Amino acid sequence: MTVPDRRPALTTPSRRALAVPPFLAMEVMRDARVRVAAGETIRHLEVGQPSAPAPKAAAEAAMRMIAAGDVGYTEALGRPSLRARIARHYRETYDVAVAPERVVVTTGSSGGFALAFLAAFEPGARVAIPSPGYPAYRAILTALDLTPVELATGPASRWALTAEMVAAAHAEQPLAGVLAMSPANPTGVMTLAPDLADLAETCRKLGIWLVSDEIYHGLTYEAPAATALAFDDDAIVVNSFSKYYAMTGWRIGWLVLPERLVRVVEPLAQNLFISAPTLSQGAAEAALDDRETCEAYRQAYAVNRAMLLERLPRMGLDEILPLDGAFYAYVGVGRFSNDSTAFAKALLAEAGVALTPGVDFDRERGHAYVRMSFAGAEAEIADALDRIARWLPKR
Amino acid sequence: MTVPDRRPALTTPSRRALAVPPFLAMEVMRDARVRVAAGETIRHLEVGQPSAPAPKAAAEAAMRMIAAGDVGYTEALGRPSLRARIARHYRETYDVAVAPERVVVTTGSSGGFALAFLAAFEPGARVAIPSPGYPAYRAILTALDLTPVELATGPASRWALTAEMVAAAHAEQPLAGVLAMSPANPTGVMTLAPDLADLAETCRKLGIWLVSDEIYHGLTYEAPAATALAFDDDAIVVNSFSKYYAMTGWRIGWLVLPERLVRVVEPLAQNLFISAPTLSQGAAEAALDDRETCEAYRQAYAVNRAMLLERLPRMGLDEILPLDGAFYAYVGVGRFSNDSTAFAKALLAEAGVALTPGVDFDRERGHAYVRMSFAGAEAEIADALDRIARWLPKR
Repeated sequence: MTVPDRRPALTTPSRRALAVPPFLAMEVMRDARVRVAAGETIRHLEVGQPSAPAPKAAAEAAMRMIAAGDVGYTEALGRPSLRARIARHYRETYDVAVAPERVVVTTGSSGGFALAFLAAFEPGARVAIPSPGYPAYRAILTALDLTPVELATGPASRWALTAEMVAAAHAEQPLAGVLAMSPANPTGVMTLAPDLADLAETCRKLGIWLVSDEIYHGLTYEAPAATALAFDDDAIVVNSFSKYYAMTGWRIGWLVLPERLVRVVEPLAQNLFISAPTLSQGAAEAALDDRETCEAYRQAYAVNRAMLLERLPRMGLDEILPLDGAFYAYVGVGRFSNDSTAFAKALLAEAGVALTPGVDFDRERGHAYVRMSFAGAEAEIADALDRIARWLPKR
Repeated sequence: MTVPDRRPALTTPSRRALAVPPFLAMEVMRDARVRVAAGETIRHLEVGQPSAPAPKAAAEAAMRMIAAGDVGYTEALGRPSLRARIARHYRETYDVAVAPERVVVTTGSSGGFALAFLAAFEPGARVAIPSPGYPAYRAILTALDLTPVELATGPASRWALTAEMVAAAHAEQPLAGVLAMSPANPTGVMTLAPDLADLAETCRKLGIWLVSDEIYHGLTYEAPAATALAFDDDAIVVNSFSKYYAMTGWRIGWLVLPERLVRVVEPLAQNLFISAPTLSQGAAEAALDDRETCEAYRQAYAVNRAMLLERLPRMGLDEILPLDGAFYAYVGVGRFSNDSTAFAKALLAEAGVALTPGVDFDRERGHAYVRMSFAGAEAEIADALDRIARWLPKR
C-alpha cells in the first residue's frame, strides 16, 4: 500500500484547542533535557514531582497484581476496597465522616478535574481560580468550554483566595463555582481553617460550587491542612497520590463528591475513562497504609525547605511567599530581572540550574517571580543554591 | 471538627452530565457480580476484555520499572522510545510510513478520543457514528458538547458505514467528521480495504475529519484489517493495547495524528492528562515485541468463534452479523424476544449466563439483538453455550 499525495488541509484544529496554551515552563524543561543529554550536570528545581519512588508497600502490591495477572478493568468509580480505604482516611486524618459511596477513584487529579467540571458546570459557566495558580486549571476549564475567572491574591490575604474576593467577583458577574487550593501550587500558601470555613459558607450562601484541590495535603510544615469537607459536605474535593505518596507517574487520584454528583459522575467515568489504572489502584490502597515512608519523605522536604528559607534571603532573594506546605518556594526575582523567563533561561545556561518562571502561574505578575521545587535530594538542592549564589552577583 | 447541617442543594449536576446515560449493560454486570458473590457459577459472555493477562514481556517490563523506582511523569505525548516503536509497528504491519512525531501515547483509547475530539471539533460540531456502535462514542461526544449523528448500518452494506451514507448525511446537514470502527464493536464487522479507501476519499473531498477506531486491529480471522492511514495521511487513528495485547486495566493506547493536530494535542495532553501511566508505557513497548503471546491469544479466540458460529445456528440463533474480527458475536434474538434486556436478565437468572443486550449499541433495533463476547476461556464458553441450548427451548 502506498500513501497518497497529501491533501490540502481543509480540516483545521478547533479554536478551543488552539486556546489552550502550552506551559511555557516546558521550554525550560526541554532545554534542561537537551543539556543533560549533552552531558551537563543540571540541578533540577523545576520538576513538580518527588524524586523518591512510591512507598515500598505500594510497589509490592503492584508487583503482586502483575504476577497474578490481575490487571483487568475495575468498576468505573474504583475498586470498592480502595474507596472504603480512602473514606477511612478521612475519619482517621481529619475526623470527618465520608461514606465510601461518595469517593470516586480517578486517573490522577487531572481525571478528577475533568469529571468534576463536566458534572458540575454548564458550558460557559464562570469558575473562579486563584492567580498565581496551577496553570492547568485555566487550560482544563477552557478546553471544556468553561470560563476561568482569575482572582488575584496578594499579601493582603497572605496570598490566599478569600470569601470576600469570591463574593465581590460574584456580585460583578455571577460565578458557578470556585476552585481553591491549599497548600497551593506554586506558592506553598495554605488557606487557614477559619478562612476555608468562611469560603465554604460564602459558596453555600451564594449557591455556587466549592471545588477544593487538596493534592498537597500531608505536605505541611507548620500545621496540618484542613479539608473543605470539615466545613461543607457539599464541597467537591480533588486529591491525588502524586505528591504526598510520591506516585506521580502512576496517575491515580480521587474525588469526594456529594451524592447527587456521584450519580452523574458514574456514567461520565464509564464513558470517558472506563476505569483508573488497575495496578495504580492496588498500589494506592497499600500506600495509604505506608505512612512511615511518606512521613520520611515529608521530613526530607522539611530539611530542604529550611535550607531554602535560610539561604535564599542571604542571596538577596528575600521575597518568598508564605511557605506553609507543598514543595515549592515562590520567590520574587524583581530585584534581578523583570523577565522571569529570560532569568530562568540564563540561570540554566550559565549556572546549570533549572527552575520555573512565574509567567505560567500568573500572567500579570509572574514576570517577577520564579518557582523552585524542593522535592529533590538535599545534596542536589544544596548544590543548586551554591550555583545560584555564585551566579546571581554576575546579573 | 464537626460536619454542619446539610445545606439545601442549590447546586445541581450539569445538564450535559445528565445527558450522558449509564450503560444499561452495567445493570447486567452488577447483577452477575451479585450472583457470583452469592456463590453461583456464572458464565461470562458480557465482558469486553480478554481473560488472559498481558503478554509476559509486558509484565516483566513493568516489574523492572517498579523495582528501579522508575515511575515518574513522562513527556506529555509519551516516552520517545514507545512513540518510535509504535511508528515502526505501522511500517512492519501495514507497510505505511508514520513519523514517530505523529504518534501520541494516550491513557487508553478513551484518553485518545477525548484529545482527538477536543483538538479537531468545535463545540456543537456534528460527528457521524455508526449504529449499532460502541456506546461511549455517543457519550463522549455529548459530554464534550459535540453532536453525535447516528448512521444506521444494515445488511445492504454488510453492516459497515459507507462513503455513501456519510455523503448523504453531510448533504442533509453538514458534518465535521466521521468516526468509523473496523473491526467493529459490537458487530465484529470489518470495513474492507476498498470501502475504507472510499470513506477516506469522501471525507477528504468533503473536507471533514475521518476518525478511525482501530482498537480491534490484530483480532481478525479471515483477512488482516487495513489502517485508514494507508489511504489518508490526514486520518485520525485511535488505537489501544487493551484488546489484541490484552492490557485493558493498564489503560494505555495511542493516536496517530496529522502534524497540525499534534501541535494542539500536546498542550491539551499536558493539561488534561499530564502523561499516560508510566508503567503501562513501558509494558506496552515490550508488548509490541511479544507477538507470539498475542497470536496465541488470537488463535484461542478463533477456536471460540468457530464454536459459536457452529453451535448458535443449531439453537435457532442463526442471525449472526459478519464475524470478521474483534471478539464479539452480535446475534439476533428476535425469534425469542423483542426485549433483549429482559432476555438477558432471564438468561442470567435462569441459566447463569451473562451477555449484553443490544440496546446500548443501537437504541432503535438493539431490542432484538444481544452481544456475546468470546474473549473468555474455551471451556467456559462451551458451558455457556450448553446452558443457552438447554434454556432457549423453555422461552
